[in-house]
Amino acid sequence: MKLLITPGMGIGPEVTARALAELGDWSRYELLGDGEVIDAALDAAGVRVAVTDTRGDGEPAEVAAVRAAAERCMAGGADAMVTGPIHKGRLIAKGFDHMGHTDMLGSICGDDPVMAFAGGRLRVALVTTHVPLMGVQERITPQRVRRVVQVADSALKNDLGIPRPRLALCGLNPHAGEGGELGRTELDVLAPVVAELRAEGVDVVGPISAETAFMDAAKERFDLVVAMYHDQGLVPLKVMDFGRSVNWTIGLPIVRTSVDHGTADDLVGTGRADHSSMVSAIQLAAAIVNRRA
Amino acid sequence: MKLLITPGMGIGPEVTARALAELGDWSRYELLGDGEVIDAALDAAGVRVAVTDTRGDGEPAEVAAVRAAAERCMAGGADAMVTGPIHKGRLIAKGFDHMGHTDMLGSICGDDPVMAFAGGRLRVALVTTHVPLMGVQERITPQRVRRVVQVADSALKNDLGIPRPRLALCGLNPHAGEGGELGRTELDVLAPVVAELRAEGVDVVGPISAETAFMDAAKERFDLVVAMYHDQGLVPLKVMDFGRSVNWTIGLPIVRTSVDHGTADDLVGTGRADHSSMVSAIQLAAAIVNRRA
Repeated sequence: MKLLITPGMGIGPEVTARALAELGDWSRYELLGDGEVIDAALDAAGVRVAVTDTRGDGEPAEVAAVRAAAERCMAGGADAMVTGPIHKGRLIAKGFDHMGHTDMLGSICGDDPVMAFAGGRLRVALVTTHVPLMGVQERITPQRVRRVVQVADSALKNDLGIPRPRLALCGLNPHAGEGGELGRTELDVLAPVVAELRAEGVDVVGPISAETAFMDAAKERFDLVVAMYHDQGLVPLKVMDFGRSVNWTIGLPIVRTSVDHGTADDLVGTGRADHSSMVSAIQLAAAIVNRRA
Repeated sequence: MKLLITPGMGIGPEVTARALAELGDWSRYELLGDGEVIDAALDAAGVRVAVTDTRGDGEPAEVAAVRAAAERCMAGGADAMVTGPIHKGRLIAKGFDHMGHTDMLGSICGDDPVMAFAGGRLRVALVTTHVPLMGVQERITPQRVRRVVQVADSALKNDLGIPRPRLALCGLNPHAGEGGELGRTELDVLAPVVAELRAEGVDVVGPISAETAFMDAAKERFDLVVAMYHDQGLVPLKVMDFGRSVNWTIGLPIVRTSVDHGTADDLVGTGRADHSSMVSAIQLAAAIVNRRA
């Protein structure tokens, strides 16, 4: 197994090094990014692992690392990639024009990725991600909803080994629109897609109130919740599962997981950054590779 | 102390009766609503308490009960009111034209109420409640945000006895707008209000990402989170605190608490309906009355 890791920025290199110190089995890993920063972090943690320096490729080393890792996975030269945090604000100033890792990987892989989260008590897939709240409804199309549910259903089966996944689909509006009183997206878009998918054998329930979907998922009545937008899905997830959950990109030809935290620049070098999300991200990627093998 | 309880519909009467059986001290309570339904529930639980039958007042008994209870509290004839669930869909067919209890109480009391939740690990106040998601942004005005924060700050001090409440204010957009990249409500509306309120001595922090606000509140770094809309506030609350949290209307001249569940019509008469939220609602109302006395 060959896993490529892009430690990213901020606390990324140090949590990667500490995660590898904990996990051992270093021959399966290769790190890509700013070689100087990565080597310093590895030395501090006493870890010996292959490093590819991606400085000097015309874009920031951390971005070049993600591109190189994705291309090697696409070409079959590695089994999966695991990413640490990047700071989009700092990268935009250097010409980075994607909404984030997930969006960039979609453009490299030529596919429409779905942002999902797993590893804790809740699993979530998002229909929309980093868009202003008022831009959400127009992006809730039957095509996109259908794709997210299908991709999530397949990923749960093929990558996590859940033979018959039970999915809940949240409404867009409070109380899932309350029968049309609080919006019509549920009646006009979501309910017809759910009916079609159920007829095709997908065990998806909805649209239901987001609070019901997440309460029932917390009681293990659902294997995954499909949320319509960022805060609807990530606020309950982070409250329940912070540090345990892993950002998991599904719907791509490659396997990619990521930490679910940011660069936390104020913690760099303090020793207080928690590396548990990186450990979880590496473990999930390895588990998926093993299952697919 | 005189507490008026409107048991409402569905499982409301039975959970009220079982709550009173658990709490005792029945002379302090009076129930208002459909006398026949309430008497049957009280008999089943072996509870003896005063009942005022509000049938035949030209509107459904459960709605007339809420009106009568609010008017008696306004007139000083009772100290607080506690409400069970109503089923808005069934009431609309009978001419009910409010979004719910909270909205109706605002029109009776002539004031602008704020829907809040307390009693569990998280406390939440909502800037908007039962509106379609796409109607949220236009309702996020400086006046409304300022009122919600001030009302919440006062309620925490006066009703819960927290001398210096720490409040977090969520952004409207994902990542609180990410510096304007994902929307401008944070910069144009929320940040100026927070700056003003802080200058006036209110300890409110924000706008911050909703997931950060709720994670930090779960770690007791905040006493209350001000959420911009229904799902942003209620999904994490219900996942963390279902059955413990109480719907608490603040910003009115009267004290009002409510269960945080619906009528659960499928559970009526099965004995499986959980009365813990009604117990919590009664206890919170009594605690507030004691503190104000």
